[in-house]
Amino acid sequence: MPVLSEKGNNLPASPIRKLVQFADQAKARGTYVYHLNIGQPDIDAPKESLEVIQNSNLKLLPYGSSEGSLNFRKSLCTYFAKNKIEVDPQDIIVTAGASEAIAFTLSCIADPGDEIIIPEPFYANYNGFSAASNINVIPIISLFEDQFSLPAIESIEAKITSRTKAILICNPSNPTGYLYSEEEIEKLGDLALKYNIFLIVDEVYREFIHDDQTKHYSVLQSRKLTENAIMIDSVSKRYSLCGARVGCLVSKNKALIANALKFAHLRLSPATYALLASEAAINSDSSYLLAVKKEYTTRKKTLISALEKIDGVRVSNPKGAFYCIVELPVVDADLFSKWMLTDFTDNNETVMFAPAAGFYSSPGYGKKQIRIGFILNEQKLLRATEILEKALKTYSN
Amino acid sequence: MPVLSEKGNNLPASPIRKLVQFADQAKARGTYVYHLNIGQPDIDAPKESLEVIQNSNLKLLPYGSSEGSLNFRKSLCTYFAKNKIEVDPQDIIVTAGASEAIAFTLSCIADPGDEIIIPEPFYANYNGFSAASNINVIPIISLFEDQFSLPAIESIEAKITSRTKAILICNPSNPTGYLYSEEEIEKLGDLALKYNIFLIVDEVYREFIHDDQTKHYSVLQSRKLTENAIMIDSVSKRYSLCGARVGCLVSKNKALIANALKFAHLRLSPATYALLASEAAINSDSSYLLAVKKEYTTRKKTLISALEKIDGVRVSNPKGAFYCIVELPVVDADLFSKWMLTDFTDNNETVMFAPAAGFYSSPGYGKKQIRIGFILNEQKLLRATEILEKALKTYSN
Repeated sequence: MPVLSEKGNNLPASPIRKLVQFADQAKARGTYVYHLNIGQPDIDAPKESLEVIQNSNLKLLPYGSSEGSLNFRKSLCTYFAKNKIEVDPQDIIVTAGASEAIAFTLSCIADPGDEIIIPEPFYANYNGFSAASNINVIPIISLFEDQFSLPAIESIEAKITSRTKAILICNPSNPTGYLYSEEEIEKLGDLALKYNIFLIVDEVYREFIHDDQTKHYSVLQSRKLTENAIMIDSVSKRYSLCGARVGCLVSKNKALIANALKFAHLRLSPATYALLASEAAINSDSSYLLAVKKEYTTRKKTLISALEKIDGVRVSNPKGAFYCIVELPVVDADLFSKWMLTDFTDNNETVMFAPAAGFYSSPGYGKKQIRIGFILNEQKLLRATEILEKALKTYSN
Repeated sequence: MPVLSEKGNNLPASPIRKLVQFADQAKARGTYVYHLNIGQPDIDAPKESLEVIQNSNLKLLPYGSSEGSLNFRKSLCTYFAKNKIEVDPQDIIVTAGASEAIAFTLSCIADPGDEIIIPEPFYANYNGFSAASNINVIPIISLFEDQFSLPAIESIEAKITSRTKAILICNPSNPTGYLYSEEEIEKLGDLALKYNIFLIVDEVYREFIHDDQTKHYSVLQSRKLTENAIMIDSVSKRYSLCGARVGCLVSKNKALIANALKFAHLRLSPATYALLASEAAINSDSSYLLAVKKEYTTRKKTLISALEKIDGVRVSNPKGAFYCIVELPVVDADLFSKWMLTDFTDNNETVMFAPAAGFYSSPGYGKKQIRIGFILNEQKLLRATEILEKALKTYSN
């Protein structure tokens, strides 16, 4: 048999999807599974975004512009301007979700053996995309006890080597829900400038801030960072359009955008229908996003309060996004999560979580932790929490 | 300014899209441009494929399965079976076009510095995707004079080193239209087995064979190749669904598919609407493909016969796909193609070609050649040929 690549053999499995087979087996046995493992919103997309597709009158699906249609990029600029982010269409490359934006970004800034610094726990696919490009992730631990705030800037600086190409954060963070402050972004920006590297910020959860007094500060709002800032975005979570696979990378660095366009040319173009639906969503009334944000904030309160009532459970209170990290009174949350799918049901129902160890790159961290996405309605979240409580009792016996 | 990757800086520009800016400028001056440069079909997609979208009643767009829905993969199996290709759903990973299938395949089989042997001229993006993964393309010349048939097998064998991971061909070929015979595929298969490497065949143009007596022979029809064969496919050209971005990689090699699934997990899932449209297309009546095939064959005859009448022009007669390589009586077809966009019009119309040098990896080859796609109707093809003839006369003066 021919030999496969080391890269492919060593590619880490997704912590979000790794237990899928056990969930499938549970469903096959007739068990209802509450999916709190994935970031798949259950809220309706803006109706305009789906109507535009139903009313489309295409006779065939042609390739589009590799960088995304000008109209779509103009719509993005208008949306960004509402968030105090001033960019032009030529600063944007439209991608197949934030996923492709991350892949393009890494390809544009790093060669094999280069390094990217990422505070952990982090979105596991940052690790995957880095591995796929033979780039080394240099993790720096942020702590449950500190609500996962930015580690001391000196400890980040200490990780910078001649191979370091960027610092990457997700703001607000998947999986922790931590919201980086303007001060923290500026501190990271100073480091990027000092060492002539990039600051990449994944802002796909920008809209979901659970406190009306707090504003999101985009890396593209920083006046001094121009050439060093790259922002990742996506319509997936914001408009419940995960299956559209439409995102973008945005930067004022023209050389970077020119190279990203070459990678975009390679894969020809974003998907036609997806772009139509996404454009309609971006142009939909702002009341849509307000209602969605309110719904997630309500769910957050309900979920956190229910979790805090469970004996031995500790919760990190997220300021943004729709995830929280939960510490369980178990030795290995990975085994516990699997057990909940294979061996436990309550009234023929169970819950699927994402074990948090897979969001850490340093071995041994997050073993007692899970990530919960509050992407089900309040009633279901309460029921899922009830099942968790019962499962923990059974498991400890 | 921060340093960009060498990989990105060195990524070759697409020969198909490199003259786009000059075409855009011509259009801005009011000139009509016949696009024979791109493989963008003008034929209507199966009407079922677009109706299913108009009738869709989705409330949001969820992530799908990373490997593509089981129903979609089953539909693919039924389609393949009609073409004497026996595969199971678990042999298939659905991708964002053939592009992503190529990217996944290369990632699964090669590490940086490894080599892939490809007869040239070849689809330029094979080069691009290899460069994006730091894989070295080892070209082996096939000749206009031989209608671009497979180079002597000994000369291919002579290129195999300890770093060689695969031989890659496109059958029938973009850009030459050459159709590899069963004997040629089997010879390549023998080499793959002898050296324990992969034979990758891009079969996206499988249906477009311009001679009813000749059958396409898929690499997956080879009985002996099982673990060594990888087939690339796409709905783009077959059903005029280029903008869907739906393709697949197919292999009986279970370890390969398992690793490809890890890369698929990374980018989460194919696009929802695109998959719906593609499934309906694959399940559409076979009369659709028969009619499309007949149309391309008619166009081919018309185009070749018109080109052959032009003084000094030589045409390679394609057996399949919808491209041909044309040798022009000019020193540099790249400069000529650019000149046609910047300096020539006939009755305020001009034509855009893809200069063929970009389909060769060895320097100096194909300088007098262009690739023409017969993706416009007969009347337009005749008019475009007339414009070419006039342009050549003006250019030579």
